[in-house]
Amino acid sequence: VGFDDDGGSLVAQAGCVLENLDTYVQGRGWTMPLDLGAKGSCTIGGNVSTNAGGLRLLRYGSLHGSVLGLEAVLADGTIVDLLRTLRKDNTGIHLRNLFIGAEGSLGVVTACAVQCAPRPRSVQVALLACPSYKHVLETLSRARRDLAEILSAAEFLDLESMKMVTKYLPDNVVNPLSSSSSSSAAAASDSPFFMVIETHGSNETHDQEKMGAFLEDCMSLGAVTDGLLADSGRQASLVWRIREGITEALVRRGAVYKYDVSMPTAKMYELVEDIRSRLEAAGFRCDSGSDSAVHVLGYGHVGDGNLHLNVSAPKYDDRIQDLIEPYLYEWTGRHGGSVSAEHGLGQMKAEVIGYSKPEAAVALMAQIKASMDPKGILNPYKLLPQKALEEAYSKLNKADGATV
Amino acid sequence: VGFDDDGGSLVAQAGCVLENLDTYVQGRGWTMPLDLGAKGSCTIGGNVSTNAGGLRLLRYGSLHGSVLGLEAVLADGTIVDLLRTLRKDNTGIHLRNLFIGAEGSLGVVTACAVQCAPRPRSVQVALLACPSYKHVLETLSRARRDLAEILSAAEFLDLESMKMVTKYLPDNVVNPLSSSSSSSAAAASDSPFFMVIETHGSNETHDQEKMGAFLEDCMSLGAVTDGLLADSGRQASLVWRIREGITEALVRRGAVYKYDVSMPTAKMYELVEDIRSRLEAAGFRCDSGSDSAVHVLGYGHVGDGNLHLNVSAPKYDDRIQDLIEPYLYEWTGRHGGSVSAEHGLGQMKAEVIGYSKPEAAVALMAQIKASMDPKGILNPYKLLPQKALEEAYSKLNKADGATV
Repeated sequence: VGFDDDGGSLVAQAGCVLENLDTYVQGRGWTMPLDLGAKGSCTIGGNVSTNAGGLRLLRYGSLHGSVLGLEAVLADGTIVDLLRTLRKDNTGIHLRNLFIGAEGSLGVVTACAVQCAPRPRSVQVALLACPSYKHVLETLSRARRDLAEILSAAEFLDLESMKMVTKYLPDNVVNPLSSSSSSSAAAASDSPFFMVIETHGSNETHDQEKMGAFLEDCMSLGAVTDGLLADSGRQASLVWRIREGITEALVRRGAVYKYDVSMPTAKMYELVEDIRSRLEAAGFRCDSGSDSAVHVLGYGHVGDGNLHLNVSAPKYDDRIQDLIEPYLYEWTGRHGGSVSAEHGLGQMKAEVIGYSKPEAAVALMAQIKASMDPKGILNPYKLLPQKALEEAYSKLNKADGATV
Repeated sequence: VGFDDDGGSLVAQAGCVLENLDTYVQGRGWTMPLDLGAKGSCTIGGNVSTNAGGLRLLRYGSLHGSVLGLEAVLADGTIVDLLRTLRKDNTGIHLRNLFIGAEGSLGVVTACAVQCAPRPRSVQVALLACPSYKHVLETLSRARRDLAEILSAAEFLDLESMKMVTKYLPDNVVNPLSSSSSSSAAAASDSPFFMVIETHGSNETHDQEKMGAFLEDCMSLGAVTDGLLADSGRQASLVWRIREGITEALVRRGAVYKYDVSMPTAKMYELVEDIRSRLEAAGFRCDSGSDSAVHVLGYGHVGDGNLHLNVSAPKYDDRIQDLIEPYLYEWTGRHGGSVSAEHGLGQMKAEVIGYSKPEAAVALMAQIKASMDPKGILNPYKLLPQKALEEAYSKLNKADGATV
């Protein structure tokens, strides 16, 4: 690990854990440009290979922008050393970006250089209750306007997600809005939507003024009915625990079907409602009360148009999956969305790429894969559909016949 | 052209001129994430193909982050439609990024989708005089700290550049610091370095407070000896005219040798001094007075570690070029720099890629080029060195023998 204190560029081996790197650069006055729930276990090499998105993409941008360089080992063992820390470098084809998000199919990322962001001197976290999804969008729009350059995260979760967290997490997480002194406390804790809004700024007074104006705007518009601005690190952690604990709560509850899609933000929650109706129409009980109910949760990075749609059931049931797939992929594709916003395709979703990418693009991906990994030894059966790969390899092998 | 008012994503044909697009999105409350001197004539397709950098990269990031999608035509005429406006999309190899900065060698970009940034409600522009390059770096460091999230440009120019602009531009540009009321006016106008610092923010009062604190800091440290905070759009334009007019002034003066390198910021100006000494040692007069002098100018995007080193002479003289090349490339490579930070390689610099990229990387680039453009019809003789291309094509053709 190496760090440039002036420019904030970090050089790290692929195996470094994201949270450890963040602790390291925080100590030097900087922060990692990405943050995600799995930060305690994920490695920076994996983050780069999968183009991890996460909670602060809307502020610090994607890894295609913040990864300055990397080192990768190709299928034939060649080491490609692109481990520079330059912010600008237009010398040749941008190979670095070819490895970002390729899920190890073109080479193994063994080290990388990341541009860090200055550590914010002021951080604010708010949990807000919104009476409808339309109001979530209105709050997001006000946040973009009022918080502007200090907005660092804009997350949402629906009531099903809030109930899952408060019911199934082992540490008895309580929705802090239900204990707030507001007269509408009872109503707010049953609000259909919640948002987590975070700011990163350099001037506490300025940031508080911006946050104050934002909250006032939202309340007077009726877009937010109740809210909590964390007044301690403990309270801020609780708010993040609610948002980041959804995944853990789901696993503790039972079977879970996970989807991670992106699409125009205005359309996003329609998909959740649609899947819920579809399951109900097929006889599944989706109302929250019963222990045997199937819960359809919608939450995620609303600021990036990125929805996590998770379906929770007491136990796995093929009928549920058959009701969701390929229906959900078709729905997403029809609305110009991505069937994998940040989780990648891996083995399970390699075959559904066609809902988000045209045939010509998939064929070109397979051609590049075959050219760079002619023996198909790097992460086989992943990322790309078998048919496209077979065609690309068959072309390659026919051509290679001459040299055999 | 299409625009999403909620999310700020722009879809445009490749031939749209950057400045026209900026005017268009400004009218809707947004701004383009890139800005460069050539904005009045460059096209967005060219910007994407060359991964244009420019003045505001340190704020809004590179095009690898802000280009959301594109459409490209391959060598065989296939149209690859990746024209989506999603902020997150991890479905397959990230082909979009393969075309960014590839200078048209892999395909022709015919349309693109760009994530715009909210239009700043408050813009401040300052011209500062710094007594040494060390003080330029100190001012940059204070700007990162004090202006933080509102800093949108950090540029520098040396006295040679200032003299070139005030002497050769047709519109009689005057250094505004020389007419300032400061008692040190005479000294400041002859300051060895100048900086242009710009902020983009959402709250005028907050931004003015941050700028005030920054200027006070720099003055009290002695890092800035004189400064002008533009108090009108006219004055702000004059400051930008000085910085952006250097290229035009150079062309009006006579012959010019242009270099565009990046490297660790602390090292940057040493290269300018080194080249100046080298030319002087060979008998060229580099002092500013004489009309026959050879001027070595250093200016550029100091916030990105990007130096434009330009040598101006009354007329072209091979001895000058021979003194600079390959000396400058070797110097840059030795310090881990890029021999083309933002201008790209094109035809003139294709052969010098080796100073910034290792052989294995160049070979892989050539392999991808040969695979995607087997007949070599896209921008031939550019971007990559002939030897690497010949080897890649020879491998490809040997393999292809079987199918002929």
